[in-house]
Amino acid sequence: MNYLVSASVLSADMLNLESEIRKMENSGIDMLHFDVMDGVFVNNITYGLAILEAVDKGTDMLLDVHLMIIDPLKYVERFAQCGADIITFHLESESDTMETIKAIKKCGVRASLSIKPNTPAEEVFPYLPYLDMVLVMTVEPGFGGQSFITDTLSKVKAIRDKISELGLDTDVEVDGGINAETSPLAIEAGANVLVSGSYLFKAPDMAEAAKNIKKGI
Amino acid sequence: MNYLVSASVLSADMLNLESEIRKMENSGIDMLHFDVMDGVFVNNITYGLAILEAVDKGTDMLLDVHLMIIDPLKYVERFAQCGADIITFHLESESDTMETIKAIKKCGVRASLSIKPNTPAEEVFPYLPYLDMVLVMTVEPGFGGQSFITDTLSKVKAIRDKISELGLDTDVEVDGGINAETSPLAIEAGANVLVSGSYLFKAPDMAEAAKNIKKGI
Repeated sequence: MNYLVSASVLSADMLNLESEIRKMENSGIDMLHFDVMDGVFVNNITYGLAILEAVDKGTDMLLDVHLMIIDPLKYVERFAQCGADIITFHLESESDTMETIKAIKKCGVRASLSIKPNTPAEEVFPYLPYLDMVLVMTVEPGFGGQSFITDTLSKVKAIRDKISELGLDTDVEVDGGINAETSPLAIEAGANVLVSGSYLFKAPDMAEAAKNIKKGI
Repeated sequence: MNYLVSASVLSADMLNLESEIRKMENSGIDMLHFDVMDGVFVNNITYGLAILEAVDKGTDMLLDVHLMIIDPLKYVERFAQCGADIITFHLESESDTMETIKAIKKCGVRASLSIKPNTPAEEVFPYLPYLDMVLVMTVEPGFGGQSFITDTLSKVKAIRDKISELGLDTDVEVDGGINAETSPLAIEAGANVLVSGSYLFKAPDMAEAAKNIKKGI
């Protein structure tokens, strides 16, 4: 399995994104995680198209875009045009799930489906054959810096087991409260893409922190 | 009348906001205009709380926040906490207009009401005694770099005339396609706060461009 660390830009210094991007590139970070919140699907408004486009022009890193918006189908094509390499949307959003997966793939982008902590793992099973990745939220989406909800690990395991049962090689991503302590638990449960924000950006040495996240492999 | 130039950050280099802010501060720009779009009220998603908070920590400039969001009342307090000095919301949004004005003022922030190009000027008249500013959109909100809609000037004039008739000193702001050619027209019609994005940020000399915008005074 390919293990990847995806650094959540929401924890970066927003006034100096270019130098933050250089820091990520030089610290062995595999992907840049970009949390889009619209203030309707979740209780926060972060950033969207213009900033993603600027980030895309500023780096060759893979852009892992997480849409926490009410109608992702409406915006898939534009996020693809702005440089998204992976687009994750929510099962709990108002868009039709299969239509949105198809729209993402039509843009040549990897399709990923996410569930909030209260949504059962089983709800993603029917879509697994069509997905490149599943994102299991390990905190309630809306803010950075929250504590990892340990109960979500059973969902990671259930999804990884189902992926194996179906003979697929879908990535399983976790996002929320990931650090040197929680990452090995998520990896053990079956996650292979590890999103981390505060832990990476607040670390005195980001490269060392990224290594710590992969320690459980 | 106090004439002010408000620079729209949406046209800045998003990867280097700190140096863009220094440039604005050193170019005689009076306010920093911050366009929040949620993808629901308008067909674009720009930025919101986290970036405003970062900008606020990075400058003492007045922060002129324009909420193009479906339910501004829900977010007024948080934008105030993140450093807004002026909050503009839309008459066409789903929030109650008077309640939202009251909520903004309760936070100690200047209250401003905006109308899109197709909304008649008369619809803001009942709220004038409670407002610090009215923002007349001179393009359809959603994107930067659009051309000025000349027909909107009659609305600027109608609102300025009503303000004078009522003996108020409410500011009238215009936003969209403002440059050295359109600014004198807006000033003549009664605008005194001039938002400009592309024209300022693409100019070889921002200070000179800011002076050109005030030339019609």
